[in-house]
Amino acid sequence: MDIDDYMTAIGRRARVASRAMARAATSAKNEALHAIARAIEREQAALKEANARDVAKAREKGMDAAFVDRLTLSDKALATMIEGLRQVAALPDPIGEIDNLKYRPSGIQVGQMRVPLGVIGIIYESRPNVTIDAAALCLKSGNATILRGGSEALASNTALAALIGEGLAQAGLPREAVQVVETADRAAVGKLITMTEYVDVIVPRGGKSLIARLIEEARVPMIKHLDGICHVYVDDRADLCKALAVCDNAKTHRYGTCNTMETLLVARGVAGVVLPPLARVYRDKGVELRVDAQARAVLEAAPWASDAPALGLVDATEQDWHTEYLAPVLAIKVVDGIEAAIEHINTYGSAHTDAIITEDHDRAMRFLREVDSASVMVNASTRFADGFEYGLGAEIGISNDKLHARGPVGLEGLTSLKYVVLGHGEVRQ
Amino acid sequence: MDIDDYMTAIGRRARVASRAMARAATSAKNEALHAIARAIEREQAALKEANARDVAKAREKGMDAAFVDRLTLSDKALATMIEGLRQVAALPDPIGEIDNLKYRPSGIQVGQMRVPLGVIGIIYESRPNVTIDAAALCLKSGNATILRGGSEALASNTALAALIGEGLAQAGLPREAVQVVETADRAAVGKLITMTEYVDVIVPRGGKSLIARLIEEARVPMIKHLDGICHVYVDDRADLCKALAVCDNAKTHRYGTCNTMETLLVARGVAGVVLPPLARVYRDKGVELRVDAQARAVLEAAPWASDAPALGLVDATEQDWHTEYLAPVLAIKVVDGIEAAIEHINTYGSAHTDAIITEDHDRAMRFLREVDSASVMVNASTRFADGFEYGLGAEIGISNDKLHARGPVGLEGLTSLKYVVLGHGEVRQ
Repeated sequence: MDIDDYMTAIGRRARVASRAMARAATSAKNEALHAIARAIEREQAALKEANARDVAKAREKGMDAAFVDRLTLSDKALATMIEGLRQVAALPDPIGEIDNLKYRPSGIQVGQMRVPLGVIGIIYESRPNVTIDAAALCLKSGNATILRGGSEALASNTALAALIGEGLAQAGLPREAVQVVETADRAAVGKLITMTEYVDVIVPRGGKSLIARLIEEARVPMIKHLDGICHVYVDDRADLCKALAVCDNAKTHRYGTCNTMETLLVARGVAGVVLPPLARVYRDKGVELRVDAQARAVLEAAPWASDAPALGLVDATEQDWHTEYLAPVLAIKVVDGIEAAIEHINTYGSAHTDAIITEDHDRAMRFLREVDSASVMVNASTRFADGFEYGLGAEIGISNDKLHARGPVGLEGLTSLKYVVLGHGEVRQ
Repeated sequence: MDIDDYMTAIGRRARVASRAMARAATSAKNEALHAIARAIEREQAALKEANARDVAKAREKGMDAAFVDRLTLSDKALATMIEGLRQVAALPDPIGEIDNLKYRPSGIQVGQMRVPLGVIGIIYESRPNVTIDAAALCLKSGNATILRGGSEALASNTALAALIGEGLAQAGLPREAVQVVETADRAAVGKLITMTEYVDVIVPRGGKSLIARLIEEARVPMIKHLDGICHVYVDDRADLCKALAVCDNAKTHRYGTCNTMETLLVARGVAGVVLPPLARVYRDKGVELRVDAQARAVLEAAPWASDAPALGLVDATEQDWHTEYLAPVLAIKVVDGIEAAIEHINTYGSAHTDAIITEDHDRAMRFLREVDSASVMVNASTRFADGFEYGLGAEIGISNDKLHARGPVGLEGLTSLKYVVLGHGEVRQ
């Protein structure tokens, strides 16, 4: 099989299907989602069988437990998929709404209509649940989808694709509206991210090395984020209780997520009261602290300084300010105040999510305006940067680019606005 | 001078200036715009002197009259610049507004704040008026700007840049918020469009060959359109008067603009009544018609068929459906109906602007929804696709991409929305 031809054929079918999806009625799209849910319910045994083949191969290859866990379609994973499909069916359909329709002096009416992007390519790791999540969101937003999951999940994804096709057909929608790339050849990804004629946007979901490679090679625009180097800045006008609660939660609620705090900035004026109790919290939870000289001095001068060695302080290096640990490790720096904090964040951050803890209104507003990140927060944990928490109803990913969708991306991020002009034969003077 | 170092230094200064611009008060930005207007008014003689040097060199190089015309800073061109600056000052400031601030069940409030993109690079031809237009829009929207105009306008642009810097400084804003690349070296463009660290978006304004080259090489996202292959489809339920008025205006109002109709599609059912009178209009205005076999048959069977040779009909080839003439040339095709028209437009069009002429509501709505273009129109001339006509107050360019801004791009297209979260110490459960 020639990969180039294979992918081109997929792209062409997707483009054709995208036109039918763009005009699909809300009821047809919802019926397809429900039909897919029913098909998965019915075929649980067959799905688990296909998945077991993938899992066996992955174990043979020596993949680690976390990998196998993400790959496995457990009863719970299947139930979550089915529930997810029904939740997406229940979301409002963003497509077709016309906003801001206004008369202009020339007599024409001008407004903006929300329309699908067209064809969306999803590139992800060996996680079959993403197949259903992504397909559901793209389907609901009227897009055609090309799914390229990790090769270790091929049998699972192929089985899921058949059920998706069945559900689409039952609702009178084209089966080609969701296609799974059924080859493990990596050249398929290279083609997918460069065939601008057939693919409108790529959503990569996966590790940093995958995304870094895609950024290099892609010609199709991407909705993505590379790093999540999130900061909390504790201002010297912070409420201490809020500071402790947020700094604890932002770091220790989950270590491996992109909205986890990786660097803590503390104003010099409050370092002495904030850092010692925080350091104890982190110590109790096994978080390694990488501190600058001032933070070390503060911690070693604390009343319980004799405990300090137990904190396992490590001297931070320049590299630490650039690092997304995704692990129980936290960089800590004492700064002069809000100006230095903003400067640090805009220099070392990844424009993902950053928070200030302060009771001062002017400083809060300044932080919101000047920190150049997709999500900026006052007195709240960075862990809230999430489509569900923001009320988007769903999340296809998070973007830390500035164009198009920024921050958590829900259904709306899979659409665009085009201008509509309604006239009565007007011509331009 | 090492171009790489030179451009990096410009980029670094722009990034620093962009932070100050992001927090600049509306009054300071407006004061800068007025100060630049006053400076241009005062220095008209010096500007014309600098411009005369550019013009003399261009003439020596043998540039054509149209080129010299665009390059020349006439009294009228200067007056338009000054007026433009004052108009932009009068526009509402888009920056800082927070929309959709809603409480979530967790207790946090989530909204979206409009913020500048950061640093905008403008690449354009030897048209000094673009220097002021683009600088004004970027300044008002709180961005820093790097301007790279055609090398033939270097003396004019350098003189204008000095006045822009003076205006910025008078308003207490950094001079580096608007920088002109003062080298004719083409490598400067190559660097500008790839230094993603310092430039957030490129707006290319110029010919197709320039933009095609930039698309190949750019790593910085662009707001741009390559082609304007605009269509008018005359449906068999069209009002004949509207059809004639719009088809005339869409083609002949201006030939060289991107929103000019390049292909006319006519439903078979009305070709006999629509094409003959239209062909006479076009003949009288000297428009060459490239027709498919059916259109030719209709025109040659018209009552005044003896006139047909005078129409200068040319047989259309496949290439014609792909061509943006930017000239008094029009491709004409007879189609079966709306389905074929939409198919043709989505296949051959450039996703810029397309219109249907019909009295049928369902068909009008179908056209609006299914034609995948930045602007879709019912009973109106494609020439309306324009920032001023749409009420944007200004236009930095037109985009036929689907991500970010689509269609005419005004101040808002130079901004993005970031999420703001206001809490009271909430943590994620």
